[in-house]
Amino acid sequence: MRRFFVESQDIQDGCVTICGGDARHIAKVLRLGAGSIIHVVDSAGRELEVALTTVADTCVTGAVVAVRERSSALPSVELTLVQGLPKGDKMDLVVQKCTELGVSRFMPVLTARSVARPDSGAASRRVQRWRRIAAEAAKQCGVGRAPEVRDILTLGEALGLLSEEKPSMLFPWECETESGLRQALRQVALSDVRRIAVFIGPEGGFEREEAKSVIEAGAIPVSLGRRILRTETAGMVVAAVIMYELGELG
Amino acid sequence: MRRFFVESQDIQDGCVTICGGDARHIAKVLRLGAGSIIHVVDSAGRELEVALTTVADTCVTGAVVAVRERSSALPSVELTLVQGLPKGDKMDLVVQKCTELGVSRFMPVLTARSVARPDSGAASRRVQRWRRIAAEAAKQCGVGRAPEVRDILTLGEALGLLSEEKPSMLFPWECETESGLRQALRQVALSDVRRIAVFIGPEGGFEREEAKSVIEAGAIPVSLGRRILRTETAGMVVAAVIMYELGELG
Repeated sequence: MRRFFVESQDIQDGCVTICGGDARHIAKVLRLGAGSIIHVVDSAGRELEVALTTVADTCVTGAVVAVRERSSALPSVELTLVQGLPKGDKMDLVVQKCTELGVSRFMPVLTARSVARPDSGAASRRVQRWRRIAAEAAKQCGVGRAPEVRDILTLGEALGLLSEEKPSMLFPWECETESGLRQALRQVALSDVRRIAVFIGPEGGFEREEAKSVIEAGAIPVSLGRRILRTETAGMVVAAVIMYELGELG
Repeated sequence: MRRFFVESQDIQDGCVTICGGDARHIAKVLRLGAGSIIHVVDSAGRELEVALTTVADTCVTGAVVAVRERSSALPSVELTLVQGLPKGDKMDLVVQKCTELGVSRFMPVLTARSVARPDSGAASRRVQRWRRIAAEAAKQCGVGRAPEVRDILTLGEALGLLSEEKPSMLFPWECETESGLRQALRQVALSDVRRIAVFIGPEGGFEREEAKSVIEAGAIPVSLGRRILRTETAGMVVAAVIMYELGELG
């Protein structure tokens, strides 16, 4: 559900006033009316349940019916997604959806089969764009802090960075046919782990030498089953299942 | 991983020839070379592992190194996604990703808070488009059969259709704070169930009366946790977790 952000001064005597674009959104897009409940976060970080009293395109008012101090929605595990740079704007989708799911860091990596090979100017613009998408998604879904988006790395650089942190590492790999995700997550013993990194190849997958380096670095190769997931789907699915197993999906 | 479809006549004495767009894709996009392994499905439905021998933009050849009869990648459960019509082209994404995950039927429903309200011509074009996307995604991910995409229904019509089939029904709902997905799936006893339907509201959620009708029809309201998932993310996440619990994710 959408949350609206208001300044503390917009709340007076238990009455909230929302003007401008958010008001128009409530009236025209969400089509809410008097009596509808919206969720509001104020600049003090409190979360308010507000029953709308008047709705107009330019200004909406409502009464605060419940207040709670906001608990951070960050999951207990730091999940890093090492994503082989996919084609076109697919990384936008990966960043947005995986932020919603609670991924705390993105490492876009340039691999042998990455089709996108941005020059340094284009790379920097793309990374800036992903950071904006991550910040926006974090805000909308109620994660307190936007995930980190690293500059585009080589696979070797990503493995180097991770070798210092020693996370548990999972590597969904089309050549793995034995060990599935469930078995790998049991092996990882999720509840005892503070950091997990997941490696997702680009379209066409990692090259064999790359896959070898990921596995030699300690990542557990896993099968994601009989259906073949696209590169931009695989990360979301693994993130969703990890959060589910951690009890983060309710 | 991408699979390539060839006619049986393109395989002679264990040698496969792929020409045209697929050859260019292998050479230019996937950047594969001699020795790379690709997966090929022939018109008899067999699945072949092929080691490339020569790669040119116009024509690629390879040797068959393994053959297996193809098992259907359809999951054991029929999963229906009842999706409140979201804005813009988000339904495209929902259909594509949920097809990859093994959803077998989509019921797009027009709800009180659906912003998109296509007239009958536009509705028919959109449904045709979703059917094409579903067919394409099913082909790419190795699901034998494209999922069904129903015409746009009212929520009442969708509930009417489902009442005859009596699936287990889950309803991720922002007002549910107690029962999480794990608990609900335990309640459903997935392994004994043949049909599941999942209800996802549009942006802004279902209206209270709609939510009431879904629950009265027997759907279990569930929380998806502290982070707020967008409408187009919620269905994918629930589908991913159901497939995981069914052992369909390896």
